[in-house]
Amino acid sequence: MDAQASPTLPALTETEPGKTVLGLSPSGLTSVFKSIRRRSEALCAPLSVEDYVVQSMPDVSPSKWHLAHTTWFFETFVLQGADGDGRVHHPMYGHLFNSYYNTVGKMHPRPLRGLLSRPSVREVYAYRAEIDQRIGELLLSTDAEAFKRIERLIEIGLHHEQQHQELILTDIKHVLSCNPLRPAYRATNRGNRNATAKSAWVEFAEAIAWIGTSGEEFTYDNERPRHKIFHNAFQIATREVTAGEYIEFIEDGGYRRPELWLSDGWNTIGGLGWNAPMYWSKRNGCWFMFTLSGEAEVNNADPVCHISHYEADAYARWAGARLPTEAEWEIAAHDHDVENSGTIEGNFVEDGLFHPCAPLEPLPTNALSQMYGGVWEWTGSPYTPYPGYAAPEGALGEYNGKFMSNQMVLRGGSCVTPRSHIRRTYRNFFPPDARWQFSGLRLARDVPAN
Amino acid sequence: MDAQASPTLPALTETEPGKTVLGLSPSGLTSVFKSIRRRSEALCAPLSVEDYVVQSMPDVSPSKWHLAHTTWFFETFVLQGADGDGRVHHPMYGHLFNSYYNTVGKMHPRPLRGLLSRPSVREVYAYRAEIDQRIGELLLSTDAEAFKRIERLIEIGLHHEQQHQELILTDIKHVLSCNPLRPAYRATNRGNRNATAKSAWVEFAEAIAWIGTSGEEFTYDNERPRHKIFHNAFQIATREVTAGEYIEFIEDGGYRRPELWLSDGWNTIGGLGWNAPMYWSKRNGCWFMFTLSGEAEVNNADPVCHISHYEADAYARWAGARLPTEAEWEIAAHDHDVENSGTIEGNFVEDGLFHPCAPLEPLPTNALSQMYGGVWEWTGSPYTPYPGYAAPEGALGEYNGKFMSNQMVLRGGSCVTPRSHIRRTYRNFFPPDARWQFSGLRLARDVPAN
Amino acid sequence: MDAQASPTLPALTETEPGKTVLGLSPSGLTSVFKSIRRRSEALCAPLSVEDYVVQSMPDVSPSKWHLAHTTWFFETFVLQGADGDGRVHHPMYGHLFNSYYNTVGKMHPRPLRGLLSRPSVREVYAYRAEIDQRIGELLLSTDAEAFKRIERLIEIGLHHEQQHQELILTDIKHVLSCNPLRPAYRATNRGNRNATAKSAWVEFAEAIAWIGTSGEEFTYDNERPRHKIFHNAFQIATREVTAGEYIEFIEDGGYRRPELWLSDGWNTIGGLGWNAPMYWSKRNGCWFMFTLSGEAEVNNADPVCHISHYEADAYARWAGARLPTEAEWEIAAHDHDVENSGTIEGNFVEDGLFHPCAPLEPLPTNALSQMYGGVWEWTGSPYTPYPGYAAPEGALGEYNGKFMSNQMVLRGGSCVTPRSHIRRTYRNFFPPDARWQFSGLRLARDVPAN
Amino acid sequence: MDAQASPTLPALTETEPGKTVLGLSPSGLTSVFKSIRRRSEALCAPLSVEDYVVQSMPDVSPSKWHLAHTTWFFETFVLQGADGDGRVHHPMYGHLFNSYYNTVGKMHPRPLRGLLSRPSVREVYAYRAEIDQRIGELLLSTDAEAFKRIERLIEIGLHHEQQHQELILTDIKHVLSCNPLRPAYRATNRGNRNATAKSAWVEFAEAIAWIGTSGEEFTYDNERPRHKIFHNAFQIATREVTAGEYIEFIEDGGYRRPELWLSDGWNTIGGLGWNAPMYWSKRNGCWFMFTLSGEAEVNNADPVCHISHYEADAYARWAGARLPTEAEWEIAAHDHDVENSGTIEGNFVEDGLFHPCAPLEPLPTNALSQMYGGVWEWTGSPYTPYPGYAAPEGALGEYNGKFMSNQMVLRGGSCVTPRSHIRRTYRNFFPPDARWQFSGLRLARDVPAN
Repeated sequence: MDAQASPTLPALTETEPGKTVLGLSPSGLTSVFKSIRRRSEALCAPLSVEDYVVQSMPDVSPSKWHLAHTTWFFETFVLQGADGDGRVHHPMYGHLFNSYYNTVGKMHPRPLRGLLSRPSVREVYAYRAEIDQRIGELLLSTDAEAFKRIERLIEIGLHHEQQHQELILTDIKHVLSCNPLRPAYRATNRGNRNATAKSAWVEFAEAIAWIGTSGEEFTYDNERPRHKIFHNAFQIATREVTAGEYIEFIEDGGYRRPELWLSDGWNTIGGLGWNAPMYWSKRNGCWFMFTLSGEAEVNNADPVCHISHYEADAYARWAGARLPTEAEWEIAAHDHDVENSGTIEGNFVEDGLFHPCAPLEPLPTNALSQMYGGVWEWTGSPYTPYPGYAAPEGALGEYNGKFMSNQMVLRGGSCVTPRSHIRRTYRNFFPPDARWQFSGLRLARDVPAN
Repeated sequence: MDAQASPTLPALTETEPGKTVLGLSPSGLTSVFKSIRRRSEALCAPLSVEDYVVQSMPDVSPSKWHLAHTTWFFETFVLQGADGDGRVHHPMYGHLFNSYYNTVGKMHPRPLRGLLSRPSVREVYAYRAEIDQRIGELLLSTDAEAFKRIERLIEIGLHHEQQHQELILTDIKHVLSCNPLRPAYRATNRGNRNATAKSAWVEFAEAIAWIGTSGEEFTYDNERPRHKIFHNAFQIATREVTAGEYIEFIEDGGYRRPELWLSDGWNTIGGLGWNAPMYWSKRNGCWFMFTLSGEAEVNNADPVCHISHYEADAYARWAGARLPTEAEWEIAAHDHDVENSGTIEGNFVEDGLFHPCAPLEPLPTNALSQMYGGVWEWTGSPYTPYPGYAAPEGALGEYNGKFMSNQMVLRGGSCVTPRSHIRRTYRNFFPPDARWQFSGLRLARDVPAN
Repeated sequence: MDAQASPTLPALTETEPGKTVLGLSPSGLTSVFKSIRRRSEALCAPLSVEDYVVQSMPDVSPSKWHLAHTTWFFETFVLQGADGDGRVHHPMYGHLFNSYYNTVGKMHPRPLRGLLSRPSVREVYAYRAEIDQRIGELLLSTDAEAFKRIERLIEIGLHHEQQHQELILTDIKHVLSCNPLRPAYRATNRGNRNATAKSAWVEFAEAIAWIGTSGEEFTYDNERPRHKIFHNAFQIATREVTAGEYIEFIEDGGYRRPELWLSDGWNTIGGLGWNAPMYWSKRNGCWFMFTLSGEAEVNNADPVCHISHYEADAYARWAGARLPTEAEWEIAAHDHDVENSGTIEGNFVEDGLFHPCAPLEPLPTNALSQMYGGVWEWTGSPYTPYPGYAAPEGALGEYNGKFMSNQMVLRGGSCVTPRSHIRRTYRNFFPPDARWQFSGLRLARDVPAN
Repeated sequence: MDAQASPTLPALTETEPGKTVLGLSPSGLTSVFKSIRRRSEALCAPLSVEDYVVQSMPDVSPSKWHLAHTTWFFETFVLQGADGDGRVHHPMYGHLFNSYYNTVGKMHPRPLRGLLSRPSVREVYAYRAEIDQRIGELLLSTDAEAFKRIERLIEIGLHHEQQHQELILTDIKHVLSCNPLRPAYRATNRGNRNATAKSAWVEFAEAIAWIGTSGEEFTYDNERPRHKIFHNAFQIATREVTAGEYIEFIEDGGYRRPELWLSDGWNTIGGLGWNAPMYWSKRNGCWFMFTLSGEAEVNNADPVCHISHYEADAYARWAGARLPTEAEWEIAAHDHDVENSGTIEGNFVEDGLFHPCAPLEPLPTNALSQMYGGVWEWTGSPYTPYPGYAAPEGALGEYNGKFMSNQMVLRGGSCVTPRSHIRRTYRNFFPPDARWQFSGLRLARDVPAN
């Protein structure tokens, strides 16, 4: 077990994506490219060949599919693009590994991804190797003008790759959880991570604030344009809600009291029989959970995880609070970042815990903490376009814009997000009943009247 | 047919609800109460006994159920309340006619409302008569202090009644449309309502604006509190999109071009095979629609109707525009109201058209029109609580708050809304795939850069 | 209640169908025709207008539909036939009231019959009156040769009408049972019907026997041709299994022991949560059932009723016996009929009990009883064509033949079957999970080895 | 391709199961046991590791599951039985690999078999090796009395193994067919197998016949007891219906003519959109089919295959004939066997064609041929117990008896059945809509009247 305790993800090079990937030399970009691509494979290293194949529900994709789809992304948008070499690795891969880009062509139906035993895992790795090779050749052989265009495509492709790195882990967790054998993805060493801290409120006065970004750095289109919003005074909690606090909610009849729930939430928990977070079960009066390291006892000090928006919302109502809006979250994060000199710290995939563990040391009691990593924090904001938003032209315009309905925004990244992938303005989004992601919450509230 | 052409809905008394229902004398309030209650029955006058029974889909309720449910509302919240007479008309009616108030008790499942042949239509009318009688007695016999409490319950009950008056019509339209005999609810005389006008843009500059209400007048809780928002400059169309314009969208392949659609919308139209608004069909190159007056040819100058949020959104994208936010709509409506001295004009249920007909005279080309009545206008705003919103205590807290997820806001009322029911701050809401309501759209857009 | 206690179904004339309907004079046939048609309406007399409309599950049809469909049958096969008057009552009724005759044309989908508030009950009765009038005119005006052809169509139409008389009752029972008000179809007086008798075995030796019919009398095509079968020696029970005996099975864990069940049966009871006959519920240790006379305590001496084939089969296995084959049943019925001089006696719809009540006097202990009426008896025989069977030419060939898969044969008629409708060779059939019919069982077994 | 053309299934030893497996010496039985067990693995040799995992529909099981389940069968019924060693290979395997033996304990739900990436293929093979080893040790170490009991369990286990050998092939065919890459299980060499022969009728006179078996040889319980039946005179076709003949049925509108179909069949083909056998598709006017050797043109002389009972029944009706009853088939097979000295010949799995190919030489025109192998022949007989049938005591009583509802009998074996597995009295059974097995038909008819 010790042997596996320290994950050995390949380190990223100094130059991380999202910050300096543009303007690198061809060989510098190739190096970043290969480093990130290698990590996807490193995350799959603990898997058996059989693990790569299974799709345990329509939301989940087989690991093999993730590896191939991210490769198809580079093949399609870089190599098949105006500046690419135009060669086709396999005539059917476009059909099999297109996720949702209708502009590019028809695709294999998502719920049937688990029916595909072929191409084999080995063939998928060969596909990756070939595309990586051709990308490398393209970067080194292209002229400066084309390079300018290509580096932007590489950049989004690498961020896309990182998103799927997270999904590889959330999806294989679901796959393994469906198996009565309860196999672990890999052993981890959580150490003495049980430090607790009282939660407190940090207050922000009514103001007009700038949200989103208009800068040069990489962001997704949905974080733009930077725009002004007006907000009332509000308070936001210094830390995330813990598993122990959530157990109090459960034991107070939280799942049986309709007045705490949105109507859709009440119908969801009734219809699906939910009475605790996903992966939790109670045996002999004790709560257990399935983790990427196998079955484990719930640790009270950890942030609560694998809850839907409905559960986060009901918990907040029970606690006499509410979820923050995404603007409130971003405003708070701005202050937090200033205090931390812009360093993004937290429990990320590189930490190799694969679980939102409590910290080793107690958190500060008067300052915001756990803003990044650990769990994605549900906000009370539906996922809508920012004022002035316009989706890019072409197929990549399908990346974000078309999903702006029936989803809620989450912020801050999780314990399976790559650290270099996250930023203050980052908007993640899932339907309100989704809970196979590492999703939790932080409380907010209006400033009480005196 | 002529005989039926002019609907003879009972006129409301001078004092309309939402404005002056509070502060009336007991007999004055009784008079308003009876007037509004009578209208529900008047709207059912064209129905056969059999028509009252059918539930054509889970969203639809039988007419009989609407008549009984609104009565149960008064019985439960007024007569069973602290100041009521406490008598129970029938021990099972609470179970049968509770819609969704979990706080009050368990209820008959919504999708099974159409299985109830009993109580009979006659019994439901007797139930109404008894409750109306007892409400009248209560109003006239209670002391002043209790009257103050009761009049607030009567007020919300009457607005609730009006909402169901609209649903009686939208629901029976759906019921009748499912019948291959295509029966009409009643004949109407649309006259020469084909006037058209070019659509133009009205512009509003960037500003901080107040939205919602904090006044004394009646509103639902979801319109409160009044609060500030910041908005960019925007333009909004002078009138609603017409059926003729929508046909252009259809003929331009609107339903076959994925790039125009939200992802959920594209899946919805594909899964359900939609290729036109609800109730529309094409025969021999001509578009027909089912109306409350039976089958009719689509009239190009009418506002397009019975479209989902997805279709409204796709149309707007096709037209190079977008849906207004609900704040934008309300800001525009404010200016419109000022110009019109606060008078709410439009095609309402009292006009007896039961269809969003084009006007008799051309609309003004430089001023906002059709803001009220005709069709509910889809906005681009998800239905969320206003900053500082808190649901009321008790069962009536379930009225609005718990539905604030997965729904989109619509504004302005429709041709089957009672005129006295609507106001500028009124927020209607439906899931984005709903289209059996009289729902259409008005375009908006960002101010183009020069 | 007394007033309703004796049902007043119109008596049939002396000449009953199935025996002498052929060869009657035109006025004699008209008289029988009108008598049977009137009875369908008499059975609907206790219904409210609303009751006629509801379809509580796809298997159930609204009463209104039954009345119209049987009328359509005469209109289509007699009046629209070669010898009919050819007039069409309403151009859409063929679409609305065709049940399953693909040869005749397309039809309204069965599960949507409950969406049709129109035609009204009044219009359906008018339809019946007109068709009856025209049939009467046709019978009296046609020439002798055509009369020969027409009387055969009238004959099958009357048997068809009688089948729907039974369905009117089984279907309205289901409709009313879905209503939490638990309304009764009509009060009945069961008197002191609690007589019991020990069940005994009647034995039949191995033999070749003739099954089915080839005679001149009316039968459905599925009872033909008469043919030989070989059977082993067997024993059959003198009477039907009682509710009290069935309760022993329940209390012995019958619904929880997989070894007693066919695999499909086990999956059915698990999936649907069955643990007692349909319409049964247990309160305070006592079994109650919903009947056409409302809620009542289960009477132990009554034949058990509203069980599926799966439950009948499991009960028989639990009892160390099996279901009889349909041939065994018919062989036993032959002996029974000989002893009873061919008189068909039992609890039929004319008795007005509408429930399989125990008899007033104890049954004979050494002779077969309860062979007719009471409950349809499930046999162990799948519904297949007799050797040499051929469906008739034309649309009426769809009457029986096409249903010969996935159904099991039941024999003997029930308490809601018209007495003149039943005969020894009559083959009823339902899928093995159906139980809204009045269906029960009688045991059989192989002759034990000595 | 040539290299793969000749399948190299391990030959069975001289002593085949079903004939002489009882009475062998311990080492002789061990040898047969290992030989049959090895063949299951040999059939999986062409599979990739990924192929073993996928479940493409609930009826299909992953190859890995088949290999483990058959092993569990021996572990449970032999090693865990009274005479076994009682050791448990893995505490969860009983849960994972029990198919449907409720008596033995709860089991993993069938539709979720494809979610199990673990145990790995390697672990399943290790499981097989260990159980085989322990069975071998048991056979060689047990005393004579226990050996007598054990050999009977081994015998049924081996027949069970052979059934799953067939399912391994039918299931992997379905899995591979779902993959747009259309991978082949293995290349085969069909040679010049296009010989045709005119179909003729062989007539059998009315008689009493003995059906089933009461002998000492191995059979399943459902083939017993031997019993007498009476049958009319009938005719049966000399050979199976060919693909070419079936194409005539299609081209004559067979799938569009309701009068040809059982009602359930008509609903099935309508609901599922069937218009040809499974695996068939038409391109440029030519019929293609997916086979275990990949996509191929339909060969007119081959027996038609992968049709449901409904399609077989409709074809027969179109051809003016019917399906034989299972008794008729067995009577015909008896004569055929006498003429062939009891030798069972046909296209079996050992032939390595994996498809019901036409023969190399024309078939005899006056004698029955193709009775065994090629395709399972649908009969017109529902699967019911033979008179006097009793399921065995204990868990093995669940093997056959509980499936005797809603299924139809098929006879004769197919091109993926092991030759030593089939016999004249063998009763296979599937629901009437199943068609992923190699199922076809042979015609029968009543003797035409002169």
